[in-house]
Amino acid sequence: MLALRCEKEPTLVRDYPEPVRKPGEALIRLRLAGVCDTDLQLARGYMGFAGVLGHEFVGEVLESDDPTWRGRRVVGDINAGCGHCSDCVHHRGHHCKSRTVLGIVGRDGAMAERFTIPERCLVAVPNGVDDDRAVFAEPLAAALHVADDVPAGADRVVVLGDGKLGLLVASALVFVVGHHEDKLALARAAGAETLLERDVGSELDDAPAVVDATGSSSGLALAMRLVRPRGTLILKTTVAGATNADLSPIVINELRVAGSRCGDLGLAVSALEAERVDPRPLIAARFPLASADEALRRAAAPGTLKVIVQG
Amino acid sequence: MLALRCEKEPTLVRDYPEPVRKPGEALIRLRLAGVCDTDLQLARGYMGFAGVLGHEFVGEVLESDDPTWRGRRVVGDINAGCGHCSDCVHHRGHHCKSRTVLGIVGRDGAMAERFTIPERCLVAVPNGVDDDRAVFAEPLAAALHVADDVPAGADRVVVLGDGKLGLLVASALVFVVGHHEDKLALARAAGAETLLERDVGSELDDAPAVVDATGSSSGLALAMRLVRPRGTLILKTTVAGATNADLSPIVINELRVAGSRCGDLGLAVSALEAERVDPRPLIAARFPLASADEALRRAAAPGTLKVIVQG
Repeated sequence: MLALRCEKEPTLVRDYPEPVRKPGEALIRLRLAGVCDTDLQLARGYMGFAGVLGHEFVGEVLESDDPTWRGRRVVGDINAGCGHCSDCVHHRGHHCKSRTVLGIVGRDGAMAERFTIPERCLVAVPNGVDDDRAVFAEPLAAALHVADDVPAGADRVVVLGDGKLGLLVASALVFVVGHHEDKLALARAAGAETLLERDVGSELDDAPAVVDATGSSSGLALAMRLVRPRGTLILKTTVAGATNADLSPIVINELRVAGSRCGDLGLAVSALEAERVDPRPLIAARFPLASADEALRRAAAPGTLKVIVQG
Repeated sequence: MLALRCEKEPTLVRDYPEPVRKPGEALIRLRLAGVCDTDLQLARGYMGFAGVLGHEFVGEVLESDDPTWRGRRVVGDINAGCGHCSDCVHHRGHHCKSRTVLGIVGRDGAMAERFTIPERCLVAVPNGVDDDRAVFAEPLAAALHVADDVPAGADRVVVLGDGKLGLLVASALVFVVGHHEDKLALARAAGAETLLERDVGSELDDAPAVVDATGSSSGLALAMRLVRPRGTLILKTTVAGATNADLSPIVINELRVAGSRCGDLGLAVSALEAERVDPRPLIAARFPLASADEALRRAAAPGTLKVIVQG
């Protein structure tokens, strides 16, 4: 079958072996996949992953142990924990030490004609949520999860970064700083206040909470400057390799830094169904699975928002 | 008067101008000062400080507005806030934007025959606490303050670093990792469990809370490895300049990072008076004020614990 394999250059393979469904797993047919910056980093060697890329998807269940799943449109939690440890019981296995992560750690991803995922990771997509919305469920869940770390009573939250993740976070929060006027317009349309980074003066100083969704050392430095003493700095983006930054403001200003990664897919699907968030303006381009390698190259171009791969 | 001025090489000056006491300030005669790693960093240009070094002290009040202070032995909070802003009201001015900091920001420090400090920063030293204990009040206050960030229910706290600060933190907490068997013996004597860093295996993995008191990038990396997912990493030490570190574990493992700086001097003096902590084994050497420059060179030698300057 067709699949996009993670190598130095993401490589489209036409004879990739069919996935073998294990007990408890569902076999999924890809409908849409989204390209994430993590996919681009994986291709540069991050996490040492070798396998099929893709962890943002909406698909159709072809086979499953539980017959009620068959034929349904689904999205899925990418973290597949052991199902038994304390983390799996309390946090859906997001930090289970023996977890696989779809298209990231030890499990082939979604940019293929077919792939498998544990049934317990599946979330059904209601009829009212079309594929173009549903494919955003995974990054939207992560964006909504950021709000869990905003301290109660924070009257202003500054989001640094007007990339697709920053814009999704902003759709749940309030103030976005970025480099691109056209992207910031999308955030304003979603109800956020915005500011170009070059225009940042003192008006954002003393923010009770700042979300760094820039994925850059300079963004981290700006975030540390904007957050007030004893305020909260939420790190949303991972960067492959070492970050060169002066971390002393964390100690001097006694900041609270909270890392935030994956969220609750069910909450994301509910937000989409209730039309509290419309991520479709973030879609920048579409490619068929047979051109998935080209999709990744397009996504790597600076300033590109969400690139969709159609199964 | 004699004073140790912060320059490229800390320089002993014999004709430094006498301090001029302003309203609300006390004039202090130095009894003992401790050399802190921050003093060594200031001499290397950290914070751009120019003035008299020294912020760990016990002294005697010579002059004050409030006559009850005169003649008393005192220690002092090094943060001198404006006294009016919200931070000053709620946090003793530790993060006041217009604060001076004794021997660090905008105010001459304690390594001089005489110096001034706002009266509201003073804490009286009880007769039962001798100078050798009292001179540790400032770093001990900071060490006790670390415990404020340990989450409730954390059944084990790992302290990385067997320097003077790590050992003081350990005296309030429980498990120290360091490079020096002789220093770790001091931590054990204070009731902590200890481990040489080279012997760290998996037994410390999954710590609910880790304190990084190493002041090094490698210590930060080890700390990020030891703390459990969603666990707390407390950063205690500041390092001058940029840190080169892979910060992705903060996001991937959704760590909570808390910077911790200065603490409550009153609590520290109480702990010393109640003999809950005895920091005297940390004293490595003593120098008269007239050899304070030599004291700083001695303190800069790798592995040196607390060097005391006698006024």
